Amino acid sequence: MSIITLTTDFGIKDHFVSAVKGAIYTELPEARIVDVSHEISPFHIIEAAYIIQNAYKNFPKGSIHIIGIDSELHAENKHIAVKLDDHYFICANNGLISLIASEFRPEKMVEINIHGTRGTNFPVLDVFVTVACHIARGGTLEVIGKTVTDIKMIKGITPIVNLGDKQIVGSIIYIDNYGNLVTNIKRKLFEKIGKGRTFKITARSAFFYTIYDRYSDAINFEIEKSKREEDGKKLAIFNSSDYLELAIYKSNPKTVGGASSLFGLRYRDTVSINFE
Amino acid sequence: MSIITLTTDFGIKDHFVSAVKGAIYTELPEARIVDVSHEISPFHIIEAAYIIQNAYKNFPKGSIHIIGIDSELHAENKHIAVKLDDHYFICANNGLISLIASEFRPEKMVEINIHGTRGTNFPVLDVFVTVACHIARGGTLEVIGKTVTDIKMIKGITPIVNLGDKQIVGSIIYIDNYGNLVTNIKRKLFEKIGKGRTFKITARSAFFYTIYDRYSDAINFEIEKSKREEDGKKLAIFNSSDYLELAIYKSNPKTVGGASSLFGLRYRDTVSINFE
Amino acid sequence: MSIITLTTDFGIKDHFVSAVKGAIYTELPEARIVDVSHEISPFHIIEAAYIIQNAYKNFPKGSIHIIGIDSELHAENKHIAVKLDDHYFICANNGLISLIASEFRPEKMVEINIHGTRGTNFPVLDVFVTVACHIARGGTLEVIGKTVTDIKMIKGITPIVNLGDKQIVGSIIYIDNYGNLVTNIKRKLFEKIGKGRTFKITARSAFFYTIYDRYSDAINFEIEKSKREEDGKKLAIFNSSDYLELAIYKSNPKTVGGASSLFGLRYRDTVSINFE
Repeated sequence: MSIITLTTDFGIKDHFVSAVKGAIYTELPEARIVDVSHEISPFHIIEAAYIIQNAYKNFPKGSIHIIGIDSELHAENKHIAVKLDDHYFICANNGLISLIASEFRPEKMVEINIHGTRGTNFPVLDVFVTVACHIARGGTLEVIGKTVTDIKMIKGITPIVNLGDKQIVGSIIYIDNYGNLVTNIKRKLFEKIGKGRTFKITARSAFFYTIYDRYSDAINFEIEKSKREEDGKKLAIFNSSDYLELAIYKSNPKTVGGASSLFGLRYRDTVSINFE
Repeated sequence: MSIITLTTDFGIKDHFVSAVKGAIYTELPEARIVDVSHEISPFHIIEAAYIIQNAYKNFPKGSIHIIGIDSELHAENKHIAVKLDDHYFICANNGLISLIASEFRPEKMVEINIHGTRGTNFPVLDVFVTVACHIARGGTLEVIGKTVTDIKMIKGITPIVNLGDKQIVGSIIYIDNYGNLVTNIKRKLFEKIGKGRTFKITARSAFFYTIYDRYSDAINFEIEKSKREEDGKKLAIFNSSDYLELAIYKSNPKTVGGASSLFGLRYRDTVSINFE
Repeated sequence: MSIITLTTDFGIKDHFVSAVKGAIYTELPEARIVDVSHEISPFHIIEAAYIIQNAYKNFPKGSIHIIGIDSELHAENKHIAVKLDDHYFICANNGLISLIASEFRPEKMVEINIHGTRGTNFPVLDVFVTVACHIARGGTLEVIGKTVTDIKMIKGITPIVNLGDKQIVGSIIYIDNYGNLVTNIKRKLFEKIGKGRTFKITARSAFFYTIYDRYSDAINFEIEKSKREEDGKKLAIFNSSDYLELAIYKSNPKTVGGASSLFGLRYRDTVSINFE
């Protein structure tokens, strides 16, 4: 039985998430349901795109991913089911899978047409669950929708390369649990453009000249612990999803602050890399 | 094997929830456990009542619902197990299942008497788990308690109809993840009293003359997007649980604010509907 | 199939937790995964130690506990797998299992050596999952590491007994969801030193002369409800994990405040007991 994952902006206090799980178990008693996140900022499509992109790859091929962000059906917001990189995604066609679709071409995509006549303000429960259970039972996409080819992409989440490959201009697309700043600049782009040249990363008034592979690589453990610069040390790293991230070593945004508060940087702010 | 759901005010940081799950798995290795919510405001019975009422219906008949809110046993707070609408509820007799019991008559109800001699300050772990596993194995309620008939109901969660059916006076019973305000006025009552008349909803200084079925019904998609009144638009809707809800379109209480902060309305505040 | 539990400081918004679960299900489709907590304060080893100590005991013998706090591998932070009290723990050797290891002697302990040559900044995903699945399939610890004997212990989490057994000086090690203050003084130590003598507990400017077994034991239910001192009443209790806890009856730290805010006490603050 396939895994069904849930990514929503429902929060974890309300009954919404459990209602969806109850409905899935009612249809498929043997379902395996895994929460990806329910703490997406309300209606924040880019946050959801970043999270589902990094989560789905770790699940077995054939997994079914329900994404419930801004999913009410209307003229400008159709429901789709997409097969892509051997995974299934059920969501609104609002750009949610831009980040994934920029890497992998959809194998199959349908606009869902099983809504019947009456509208619903809880489409994840009333529509997406039915679609997910259909796929989990081995059903085909064609049965629940008509094939379409136009996937909506979000603009502005790709970095720009300037000045004869001397500069990459990116932006912050996500702030994680430690307050670290994730940019839209991936290792692959950095290596392709940088070709091993020295560089300077600028993020407002913070500068970085090295990109580490591990957070602790920024620390010199040969210096005695009491004399060592450690807590609060700033660093740039390629995170576990291979995005350039600006971080504070062992930060805690609720107490001493994280990179976001300490650098004064927020979602959508610019981060640029200049090469020699 | 029946599903066992958990609704508590334990929060998700402490070890309490996992202790309960560990204990269930120890007794019933094949249990299926589903979290309804652990973010109920501490000791807030009406919040819990609203959430469990809307969650349980989506689970298969025969599911077992543990509700751990204000559940320490004392003279005024007995433990009960109730069969109602073909579901089982295990909780303190403190009014928690008022909302459900106002719609469905309990089929069977017992006061739990398996406590032994020593008290416990963690009754969900020490008592409710045992009861839930007993029921999940097919045991009857009579084995773990003595039949009682008096279920405690909470006052003040039912709206009042005034003035020869010209007015419904309700109140806010829940504020959801989007900051939307859920009232205790259900669609059925509105339709029964209103009989299709025009009406005006008053909530402090906010007024509403239409109740929508979907949030996006409040938006006119024929107007060009840039000119359209959309973000921050206020609206009244019957939510997915058929309660009258006052909402802001695509609100985010953590950034721009939600209906609660924008209308200056809180839990227990009055919402009235006047009919022509 | 053994249960695998997860205790981390990842938070529940980011993709980290679901990435780990996806990876486990990919290796072991029949795994049973249980969240203990993902809300540990970032890098807060004592919080994690308190939570995992109280959680693990409720799980069946043979359960496997992944603890992802401050787990990046470096010269001062080795990865270990420990068998202790018939449970398995996979974590960094940073003192995390001090509280458990102070009660139970490890049966077996290895320093994990399956890292290969390239570092990772997500060792829970890249290393701990592999180790957990190996153990879940019945593999031995010796296959994934070399036996070691030196477990790192955290100092300062044990109370001090002073003045010819006339005083116990402890401190606050955890603040729970209700704002209640958990000290490091356990019932066993209190009974051993106190030997039934009268006592006075001092926590800043708050004093306590009784330690209850249940929160409601502090309330006199023979007094009529309207006249009864109830909400906001302060009390000392041995909590469900047998730690001395200073509490407010039915507190809510988000509204009226909890013991922490009302007593002005925080993590690491002193609590002392003086015996007659």
